[in-house]
Amino acid sequence: MRNFRLELCYDGSRYRGWQKQGNTGATIQGKLEDTLSRLLDQPVEVHGAGRTDAGVHARQQTASFRADTALSCAELLALLRAHLPEDIGALSLTQAAPRFHARLNCVGKTYVYRIWNSEQPSVFERKYVWRLPGALDEAAMRRAAAYLIGEHDFAAFHTGRSKKSTVRRIDAIDISRRGEELRISLRGNGFLYNMARIITGTLVDVGQGKRAPEDLQAILESRERACAGPTAPAQGLCLWETQY
Amino acid sequence: MRNFRLELCYDGSRYRGWQKQGNTGATIQGKLEDTLSRLLDQPVEVHGAGRTDAGVHARQQTASFRADTALSCAELLALLRAHLPEDIGALSLTQAAPRFHARLNCVGKTYVYRIWNSEQPSVFERKYVWRLPGALDEAAMRRAAAYLIGEHDFAAFHTGRSKKSTVRRIDAIDISRRGEELRISLRGNGFLYNMARIITGTLVDVGQGKRAPEDLQAILESRERACAGPTAPAQGLCLWETQY
Repeated sequence: MRNFRLELCYDGSRYRGWQKQGNTGATIQGKLEDTLSRLLDQPVEVHGAGRTDAGVHARQQTASFRADTALSCAELLALLRAHLPEDIGALSLTQAAPRFHARLNCVGKTYVYRIWNSEQPSVFERKYVWRLPGALDEAAMRRAAAYLIGEHDFAAFHTGRSKKSTVRRIDAIDISRRGEELRISLRGNGFLYNMARIITGTLVDVGQGKRAPEDLQAILESRERACAGPTAPAQGLCLWETQY
Repeated sequence: MRNFRLELCYDGSRYRGWQKQGNTGATIQGKLEDTLSRLLDQPVEVHGAGRTDAGVHARQQTASFRADTALSCAELLALLRAHLPEDIGALSLTQAAPRFHARLNCVGKTYVYRIWNSEQPSVFERKYVWRLPGALDEAAMRRAAAYLIGEHDFAAFHTGRSKKSTVRRIDAIDISRRGEELRISLRGNGFLYNMARIITGTLVDVGQGKRAPEDLQAILESRERACAGPTAPAQGLCLWETQY
């Protein structure tokens, strides 16, 4: 058995997210496993660094899988490229150390949320941005974001009621503008279900003056999802980079 | 009657081109006329600077139309934005001089053809590029393009057999690379049906070593479509700018 590391990107528009879920629709993981299993004529299980939500994109996701094959990495990569749909792209394929595991070994991820903050149309980027016209107070958003940096219990910023720890560390939140587009880049050691989108929705509330930056402290402490802002739409979010 | 100037962009993927054609499918012109006629409750005829082919995009197309309305330009623009589909974007709307006509007054156009020249996937740009892996000799392509600059009979570089003049002037052809992407930018006073795509297909033949740069001279002189290269796919072409 050889262990492989696959870097990939995808347009998540058509998918129910990364993680396979019975027969409820197409997922990225399911599509990769089906394709690899068929190409290699053996059951292949694929692990991903980040379990992106339905409709969320990835610019650079990392996956790992084990398989028994005599194919070179270049040969298998070419096969994969020929058989994956055009909205999933295989960026690179390398042989990994025997114990490498894309999810367990991932030490950090960067998500980028793209807001199209303009009355102008966003025809060519429309599937990858949240269209949100109207003034956004970026300085207030940055002050709000500062409350989230560091290790915190992010229970208020996630959906679901898992028994597992909801403590995560956020290393940086950068808010930058390029013309019509406002980007919120979030780097951390791990993200809970919907966490990047709820943080974005809450920061947008601040940007629109519906909340004060200082409110973020109380929201964190509440550990109550209901205290945070709305979940920003999936299509604006992109898993930008995975760190090892 | 007031005369209006509308700047717009569109993703041409879903359309049978700019020009309306009976009931054979959706066109940009047809969609604009339907929307404006409905909003203004009167028949509105729209003229465009360039009649883009089926599947061709526009970053900045100019259109003009006459209508009887008391709405301000800002009001009409907001209405248009609210009623146009998400793949057609109204960039601006202004009142034009009474005799302004988007097609007749246009003095030049720039088309950009985008080639994704890489084995790497082009997931996010896939609808706007021609995916063409393999070596392309850019220097040879530039030498070939030089034969086309100036006023020539471009009969060999168009589809159809119109009685009208096939003489046009090309002011510049720029070939530039940004990472995986090779862009061919063509600026001229007018383009015949399929002309930008046939020029691109012929330059790509040169880039792939199938023709010599000097062959362009003989192709021009032949005035025979069969002598030129293939018509490059529509989806890589974009009407970049219209000049007045």
